[in-house]
Amino acid sequence: MSKGLKVAVIGGGSSYTPELVEGFIRYYHDLPIRELWLVDIEEGLHKLNIVGELAKRMVKASGLPITIHLTTNRREAIKDADYVSTQMRVGMLEVRSVDERIPLQYGVIGQETTGPGGMMKALRTIPVLLEICRDIEELAPQAWLLNFTNPAGMVTEAIHKYSKVRSIGLCNAPIGLIKWLTAHYQVEADRIYAEFVGLNHLHWVTRIDVDGQPKLTELLEQREQYAAANVPQQGWDADFLLSLQALPSYYLKYFYMTPQMLQDQLLSFENEGSRAQVVQQVEQELFQLYRDPELKEKPKQLEQRGGAYYSEAAVNLMRSLHNGTGDIQTLNVPNRGTIDFLPHDACIEVNCIVTQNGPLPIQLSTVPEPIKGLMHAVKTYEQLTIQAAMTGDRQVALQAMVHHPLVPSIAIAKDMLDEMLEANRAYLPLFFQKENIAVAETI
Amino acid sequence: MSKGLKVAVIGGGSSYTPELVEGFIRYYHDLPIRELWLVDIEEGLHKLNIVGELAKRMVKASGLPITIHLTTNRREAIKDADYVSTQMRVGMLEVRSVDERIPLQYGVIGQETTGPGGMMKALRTIPVLLEICRDIEELAPQAWLLNFTNPAGMVTEAIHKYSKVRSIGLCNAPIGLIKWLTAHYQVEADRIYAEFVGLNHLHWVTRIDVDGQPKLTELLEQREQYAAANVPQQGWDADFLLSLQALPSYYLKYFYMTPQMLQDQLLSFENEGSRAQVVQQVEQELFQLYRDPELKEKPKQLEQRGGAYYSEAAVNLMRSLHNGTGDIQTLNVPNRGTIDFLPHDACIEVNCIVTQNGPLPIQLSTVPEPIKGLMHAVKTYEQLTIQAAMTGDRQVALQAMVHHPLVPSIAIAKDMLDEMLEANRAYLPLFFQKENIAVAETI
Amino acid sequence: MSKGLKVAVIGGGSSYTPELVEGFIRYYHDLPIRELWLVDIEEGLHKLNIVGELAKRMVKASGLPITIHLTTNRREAIKDADYVSTQMRVGMLEVRSVDERIPLQYGVIGQETTGPGGMMKALRTIPVLLEICRDIEELAPQAWLLNFTNPAGMVTEAIHKYSKVRSIGLCNAPIGLIKWLTAHYQVEADRIYAEFVGLNHLHWVTRIDVDGQPKLTELLEQREQYAAANVPQQGWDADFLLSLQALPSYYLKYFYMTPQMLQDQLLSFENEGSRAQVVQQVEQELFQLYRDPELKEKPKQLEQRGGAYYSEAAVNLMRSLHNGTGDIQTLNVPNRGTIDFLPHDACIEVNCIVTQNGPLPIQLSTVPEPIKGLMHAVKTYEQLTIQAAMTGDRQVALQAMVHHPLVPSIAIAKDMLDEMLEANRAYLPLFFQKENIAVAETI
Amino acid sequence: MSKGLKVAVIGGGSSYTPELVEGFIRYYHDLPIRELWLVDIEEGLHKLNIVGELAKRMVKASGLPITIHLTTNRREAIKDADYVSTQMRVGMLEVRSVDERIPLQYGVIGQETTGPGGMMKALRTIPVLLEICRDIEELAPQAWLLNFTNPAGMVTEAIHKYSKVRSIGLCNAPIGLIKWLTAHYQVEADRIYAEFVGLNHLHWVTRIDVDGQPKLTELLEQREQYAAANVPQQGWDADFLLSLQALPSYYLKYFYMTPQMLQDQLLSFENEGSRAQVVQQVEQELFQLYRDPELKEKPKQLEQRGGAYYSEAAVNLMRSLHNGTGDIQTLNVPNRGTIDFLPHDACIEVNCIVTQNGPLPIQLSTVPEPIKGLMHAVKTYEQLTIQAAMTGDRQVALQAMVHHPLVPSIAIAKDMLDEMLEANRAYLPLFFQKENIAVAETI
Repeated sequence: MSKGLKVAVIGGGSSYTPELVEGFIRYYHDLPIRELWLVDIEEGLHKLNIVGELAKRMVKASGLPITIHLTTNRREAIKDADYVSTQMRVGMLEVRSVDERIPLQYGVIGQETTGPGGMMKALRTIPVLLEICRDIEELAPQAWLLNFTNPAGMVTEAIHKYSKVRSIGLCNAPIGLIKWLTAHYQVEADRIYAEFVGLNHLHWVTRIDVDGQPKLTELLEQREQYAAANVPQQGWDADFLLSLQALPSYYLKYFYMTPQMLQDQLLSFENEGSRAQVVQQVEQELFQLYRDPELKEKPKQLEQRGGAYYSEAAVNLMRSLHNGTGDIQTLNVPNRGTIDFLPHDACIEVNCIVTQNGPLPIQLSTVPEPIKGLMHAVKTYEQLTIQAAMTGDRQVALQAMVHHPLVPSIAIAKDMLDEMLEANRAYLPLFFQKENIAVAETI
Repeated sequence: MSKGLKVAVIGGGSSYTPELVEGFIRYYHDLPIRELWLVDIEEGLHKLNIVGELAKRMVKASGLPITIHLTTNRREAIKDADYVSTQMRVGMLEVRSVDERIPLQYGVIGQETTGPGGMMKALRTIPVLLEICRDIEELAPQAWLLNFTNPAGMVTEAIHKYSKVRSIGLCNAPIGLIKWLTAHYQVEADRIYAEFVGLNHLHWVTRIDVDGQPKLTELLEQREQYAAANVPQQGWDADFLLSLQALPSYYLKYFYMTPQMLQDQLLSFENEGSRAQVVQQVEQELFQLYRDPELKEKPKQLEQRGGAYYSEAAVNLMRSLHNGTGDIQTLNVPNRGTIDFLPHDACIEVNCIVTQNGPLPIQLSTVPEPIKGLMHAVKTYEQLTIQAAMTGDRQVALQAMVHHPLVPSIAIAKDMLDEMLEANRAYLPLFFQKENIAVAETI
Repeated sequence: MSKGLKVAVIGGGSSYTPELVEGFIRYYHDLPIRELWLVDIEEGLHKLNIVGELAKRMVKASGLPITIHLTTNRREAIKDADYVSTQMRVGMLEVRSVDERIPLQYGVIGQETTGPGGMMKALRTIPVLLEICRDIEELAPQAWLLNFTNPAGMVTEAIHKYSKVRSIGLCNAPIGLIKWLTAHYQVEADRIYAEFVGLNHLHWVTRIDVDGQPKLTELLEQREQYAAANVPQQGWDADFLLSLQALPSYYLKYFYMTPQMLQDQLLSFENEGSRAQVVQQVEQELFQLYRDPELKEKPKQLEQRGGAYYSEAAVNLMRSLHNGTGDIQTLNVPNRGTIDFLPHDACIEVNCIVTQNGPLPIQLSTVPEPIKGLMHAVKTYEQLTIQAAMTGDRQVALQAMVHHPLVPSIAIAKDMLDEMLEANRAYLPLFFQKENIAVAETI
Repeated sequence: MSKGLKVAVIGGGSSYTPELVEGFIRYYHDLPIRELWLVDIEEGLHKLNIVGELAKRMVKASGLPITIHLTTNRREAIKDADYVSTQMRVGMLEVRSVDERIPLQYGVIGQETTGPGGMMKALRTIPVLLEICRDIEELAPQAWLLNFTNPAGMVTEAIHKYSKVRSIGLCNAPIGLIKWLTAHYQVEADRIYAEFVGLNHLHWVTRIDVDGQPKLTELLEQREQYAAANVPQQGWDADFLLSLQALPSYYLKYFYMTPQMLQDQLLSFENEGSRAQVVQQVEQELFQLYRDPELKEKPKQLEQRGGAYYSEAAVNLMRSLHNGTGDIQTLNVPNRGTIDFLPHDACIEVNCIVTQNGPLPIQLSTVPEPIKGLMHAVKTYEQLTIQAAMTGDRQVALQAMVHHPLVPSIAIAKDMLDEMLEANRAYLPLFFQKENIAVAETI
């Protein structure tokens, strides 16, 4: 087995890990993993041990020669890894709760992957991911970094702009749609071509062929709904979708149905607290299950957590990179001319063929006129946010927030930014550095 | 005088006409007009006669050999014209009032040049302008069409896309800024370089040099305000402008300060009625003055009407086209690569040198990152609106309205669109054609 | 069998046809052809009958339910076809001989797919192909037109610009390289990724991965030669290729080794006559063989004809279109941004995935700086040639010829153009139309 | 006078200097120069003193308060300069002679600004100019560097890519055409709009308006010739120009009439030696004149030297930069999208308006299709040459030479490159550095 692969999972103590381990076991013949390193920080050690022991029991039950390593030593885990995967959450669910709550107080959507909430998550996460990249550049320069950490599009773009690490951003939404289509049409995935255009959590599906026959209009006419467990459900207007000739990502409801979504968030917040708090509850229950020494497989309840097909997306990509299969996957990659009006170095979410040297985007059949402006507006916000994350420049952060399509005015942006930065202070050293230094000097 | 110029003014009965006539008189030596044709429709004949007689008195007082023709025969006016200028309002102020009122009922900005109101104005106006273009193509193919009719950017883009007429869009806002700067710095206009980037009523000034010295930062730091009489005044946030390094058009307040502007509109609507109603009042007073047979010059009160420097902008452009002066003016012209992320055939508002063969845009020193998305979003709406205006396609109109940054949701867009199209029914034959045909068939 | 496919082959009397028939037989399970229509013009009827009878014997021997139709009625053949393939030669080999000879007299490369010879072939062929397209638009609008007719890049671009037919250009050179690589590395084709960039007969291979490992440098260092039977062999300079980091198409020797190639052509012309004459000899021998009523398979000697793997390329593409396999093929398709400095509607030769709705180009890993200018220069010539072919405009033809990189001066271009147009007079009605009309009028 | 300007002229000992001084005197009121520093290297000190004394006599005769400084201390001259101008020749005329001779031996055009000769001049000159830029960055960071040093396009592009110096490239050819037009049409220059598109020494004039009336076709039809003293005269083919609808730069004859130009060069070389040798003779005669202590003005004979209007171009640009006149000049500037198929950072020669912050290119009315490929091919060579000049990489130099449109084959390029690099060894330290180091190590 000396030629097997080494995989490091940053944030290995996540409740998602059993799903990933299940995938590694199932596809072992295509992806012969020798060592799986689950890494977490000190604060997460308790969870890491629980989920790690479950992982060990799962592997043992499979009879495969995979060794599981649990560690807080990130550098040791990364050294000579073939694949590094990230599933971490800087500041954990506690601060997510804050990001979701504050915007609501200003009458603005509170969401952890876009809007003011997504911006804060990006500001917290990007510098940490870049530190990980420094380790990879040094200890495993040939490794592929699979980034699931949200906001995955911005994080991946930052990695491409500011490091030499070979990185690909992933989301479970595209594979989720494919799964739904395979069930709906009762065909294998390789008989479906669904064309995605846009950004992470801001894509539109503009073409669905089954066995080469166009099915998009039919689907939209059936007014069928594609539901996702982790987004409040609101019906799309079928007339609008038909004239758009596209099926939007469910996250686009935040932009296309803002007042209803806001209303839902406020109600839901009143009844259940923030989404973060709901997830915390689910997590506690999951870890309760994971503790059971008789449990040797992924428990069914994990599927309620929201990350359906997450492991399948990750394992699929590793398999294709490893074997150079040239199959088609929907990934977050640098634009390089694929969407002609976005910057060359912008990260976009589109179909790619996967070679051993990485993904190559496939030309888009069409980009509907109506979506161009919104796509560009959100990309503008993303690029400014990345710049702010790398520099700690509050003025750039203000520009990012003002120009986000969900933020109604400069005045609201200023107040909300101040309050949210303050609430995130512990996780934003670059933004509060000067003050700290000043304090240090005066003492 | 056989070599003098022929100018036709469509909408010649407008209260603005005395301003234009004043300009023609003042710059006669550079722009030797022989015939000035003021054209209007039957419904405007009364006003045309009043303002036309004033124009004749003004010319007579000047002693210049300009003849004034008043007519409802558009084709006669256009025939062999050197310049055609438009200052018309399809549906007149009555329907403007509707366009400003309905959006407010949905909690949306009601404005005649952008948002749902601007969209309706475009739908009404573009087909009429294109009819005028058909006449020009036939009767005066070498004429220049100077288009002041709002929304001037969309109208000019439609003319470029769907006719062969040589046309330039104009707005008085850029010349207004230059005038303000000349007063502020006590220098001639030719010692100032103010760089405009953006669209009509959606531009940003990104560079102001006086005698070659950069003055933009200084101006923004002084937190000086540039006030325009026809827009409710709200203070810009100086911190925001400084970090943006740009002075936005006052119309950008609708986007950057939406809640305050909406609040103001609602208040003002309650107190004074719509802006249209206010203007109607001003107009009535003006025409009262124009009637005075002793009046032989533009009355001071016209300046309150809002179109300051309008005549100067028009006459300046005609003079430069006529003489090929190669001077710099801020105009609405096809993009052709000047703003790299917008379509080649999009109409933009930028600095140009004016040759006898028309304006040639000057390369932009900079396009600030933060403004790209918003500019593209509004251009998307504009392009869809133009397409809807040319086809009467209600679905395209829906896409335009949904994707306007000031419209909060599909649901609101649908209702508002239906109500506004209905209120504009008399002026939108393309949208209601099929119904009429259907009726005709059933009888 | 009512659901089988109908295929029409324009130029069915070609000596290549047995290769195509062999392919249809071999891959019948993936591409169930019911009817194969071989079409030719009256002048080619004799050859059509010979090769058609051989095709019938081949099918009969296979036992498959394919019916072969021989006809000069193109419209009957095209009606309701699923695939139309072209392998014709307007003016046949006689005029090819002229195209190859005249340039040599001016000290210029004489070649049927590029330079002055390729230009003449394009001028003759494009209008005829467009006529075929008119039939397809009318009689089989959903058909795919697979175009092998050289110059395949220009012909395909003309079809895309001037018709609505769904068309793809093909060349056997890319598949030839893949075949060579599979033999060299002893692996299946799907374990190789060879990236092609450029135009038809003007491509560079910039990446060769075998099982995901980069092999290009190694190959270039071995100074291995890739020989093609139908191009005079000249050794590439390995130092040059290594610093270019690309393997050029063998046709690029006409540009990179012009004096040697010209020398070879002159020598070879003296000894054997033109390439056309050599091919004529080979053809005669082939048809002698085809006549043998005992022959029921493609004779080995056909491989000397030069079109190795031609049938495999055609059948592969039809299979992938039919089944929507999503596999990767190197095809001639509209650029649409793939090569950023070429026009959107330029036809390029690059890797694509093949869906049932046609090929989608895959983003290029790299375009080496040194090749950009030459690629653009040849594309400029191609675009002007297409324009000349469609209009018969001699001035545009002159611009095309002057700007071809192999033509040394305006003076030579003028003389050569006049002589070559005259020699092609019978096949260039658009260029000599006015004269004919003039003649007609004077009689 | 304390507020007057400081100008440093690198290569101040050039025979052109009296022309420049004449210009400074004539336009003193618009460009109040206080100090003029003429700098040269030790080897040029003799000439510097001769021409410097003439300059002093000229200034004295004018009565203006300009002081002339003669120095070999470049840094002293540059310190706090407002304008730096370069008119130097690395390796002087001796090595130019070599560059013009060697290509002829290979049957290739020998010319000092394009082809293999231009390439060598670029390799010699660019590193020296960059050293000067290092001084300017340090000692006069606000200075404008006006670069006349050929190949001016490549040198200017290198400065923009590799330094922060504000630099503009100039050539006397555009002003020369304007002068010819003013004489031909008997109008002032500001009544002419001549649109240039292309690169330095590779431009096409695509529009000539006089008083706004198009004159290009008329000019081309008159088959008038525009002669330049320093290029062997060959008649353009008027039919070709008319169908091109452009007047090419006289340097384009090297590309469009290669065999004739080569023939002329060979003849002329046989009769008179290289152009360098002819110029050396002219220079000696000029310096003989300059020595005359009675001479107080530019001698008429200087005009035969070839750089007609050179001083006018330089002084015009300095005046416009100084005064921010916003007038139109044809300059070498970074492309930034003006020519859409060339790289953003490529240097191009187009019309600009001149502001105090530098030139802003004016959008092109048209770029004729036929010229795009050739323009791109030469730019490709230029970019590779710049890269070779900055790195001393012989492989990149080989790519540059092979891909120059005037070089017929790889084999010739390799031999010619080796011979020319060797002949330039003394001036190419970067190319021969490693050898030296290797030698040093083995001793």
